[in-house]
Amino acid sequence: MSKKTSMPKSKKFSGNHQRGWLWGHHAVIETLMNGNWPVLEIFASAQAALQHATVLRSQESEGVPLEIVSSDRLEQLSRSSEHQGLVIRLGQFPYQSMETFSTVLADSIARDRQQVKAMPPVPPPLVVICDRIQDTFNFGAILRCCDGANVDGVIVGDRGQAEVTPHVARSSSGAVNHIPIVKVSDLLESARFIKQQGFRLAAADANANTSVWHAPLGGPIGLVIGSEATGISTDLQSICDQKLWIPMLGKVTSLNAAVATGILLYEIRRQQISAVE
Amino acid sequence: MSKKTSMPKSKKFSGNHQRGWLWGHHAVIETLMNGNWPVLEIFASAQAALQHATVLRSQESEGVPLEIVSSDRLEQLSRSSEHQGLVIRLGQFPYQSMETFSTVLADSIARDRQQVKAMPPVPPPLVVICDRIQDTFNFGAILRCCDGANVDGVIVGDRGQAEVTPHVARSSSGAVNHIPIVKVSDLLESARFIKQQGFRLAAADANANTSVWHAPLGGPIGLVIGSEATGISTDLQSICDQKLWIPMLGKVTSLNAAVATGILLYEIRRQQISAVE
Repeated sequence: MSKKTSMPKSKKFSGNHQRGWLWGHHAVIETLMNGNWPVLEIFASAQAALQHATVLRSQESEGVPLEIVSSDRLEQLSRSSEHQGLVIRLGQFPYQSMETFSTVLADSIARDRQQVKAMPPVPPPLVVICDRIQDTFNFGAILRCCDGANVDGVIVGDRGQAEVTPHVARSSSGAVNHIPIVKVSDLLESARFIKQQGFRLAAADANANTSVWHAPLGGPIGLVIGSEATGISTDLQSICDQKLWIPMLGKVTSLNAAVATGILLYEIRRQQISAVE
Repeated sequence: MSKKTSMPKSKKFSGNHQRGWLWGHHAVIETLMNGNWPVLEIFASAQAALQHATVLRSQESEGVPLEIVSSDRLEQLSRSSEHQGLVIRLGQFPYQSMETFSTVLADSIARDRQQVKAMPPVPPPLVVICDRIQDTFNFGAILRCCDGANVDGVIVGDRGQAEVTPHVARSSSGAVNHIPIVKVSDLLESARFIKQQGFRLAAADANANTSVWHAPLGGPIGLVIGSEATGISTDLQSICDQKLWIPMLGKVTSLNAAVATGILLYEIRRQQISAVE
């Protein structure tokens, strides 16, 4: 599979979402003002165009076509009645390269090593590595809680991984505009690189001896999240430094990938923030 | 809206899921063996019928029609290529009544009051109240982590709330077979009843003074989870005893409902289990 055709098989969210449409005034205006994601076309109702004249004019002046259309046309384009007068078509999401992201990491590591006394205290560097998250809804929810836990960035591979689409943007509640999302061709190599920078690789593992509640979770961590279907690949597992068991107190043997990510990230931050309080 | 037509608007998972089809040998066999959810029809490949002869014969003897069909037909019925030779059509999910559930609660409360020294220690009674969770995927993930945290049961209202469908069963990873799911006509009244039984009602609230990490979370808790769209209704909020803030350390202002549920339930269990260790 080439990069361009490696869209994940997401039967649930096929159709208009995959074709790059985003709607709703909050989501659209945030994306336009963020200025990161290439905008191909803007469709607005006359009322929304007036209301958001400054932002839309600035887009027009940069060469983005703006069309004033009826509410029916907006509904047709978005296949939703919740467009609120604004629908845009987006190009490919602009992933960061590992090269660019490595400077972010270096700053974060340096700040941590210098133990800068910031108020409120800044917790240690934290990176999330997604190993083939397939479901766009899960991916969005993961990105949203990565932002909630203020991770430095999220690293994804280019195979078997949900792309950042407008649907992911929506389920991420706009987190795609706030945190670096880094796409790499070799996830294992990137994980090794993260380790070399001083991160400890941690992963959930049902067979681990230590529960996430009892494991020491200080210092820079690279948290690896495995595919919903097959978990973390063997290669990646083999280089993880810390295996964490999420206590399963009932009968199911695992949690949804996004829920597990939330529990792990928030336990990491709880311990780290308690330590500096 | 009558009860029967109050299916939530879930555009993402419409179609075959809503019509009651469940497939895949693990999901199907677990549901059949559980024996709780009425089975209307069974469709199996010849191979699957042989492999699961005992379970399927027992269903036939109870009057459930069993048809041996081709793989193509199974794919057509399930609209999935992942049927693994077994597809069933299910009737209405058998919710528990509050009357039945109240005996479960009474036992749980009595056990907690007697401080029975069980090994491993049994944490305090815990109930989750869903206030209009609309998305079936979220609802399934919430039920799955309710089972993971071993809650005594989940209470839902009969309006604006996703129904337990086979799709919810799948995204719950079978948790619908393990934990009591109670449907009530008046969620506020049920929440009041839970309080009278000795539960403290807790809820996430972005404006709360105390973070979930600092709040004391011992004793019987009824955790209220609000709708993805509108949060917890004002009436229900007004009777909550404990408001909990999930620290939002980045730029998004809230988390996905299922992720938030996971973080709250696991922080409750972490504190409770630490206290008895």
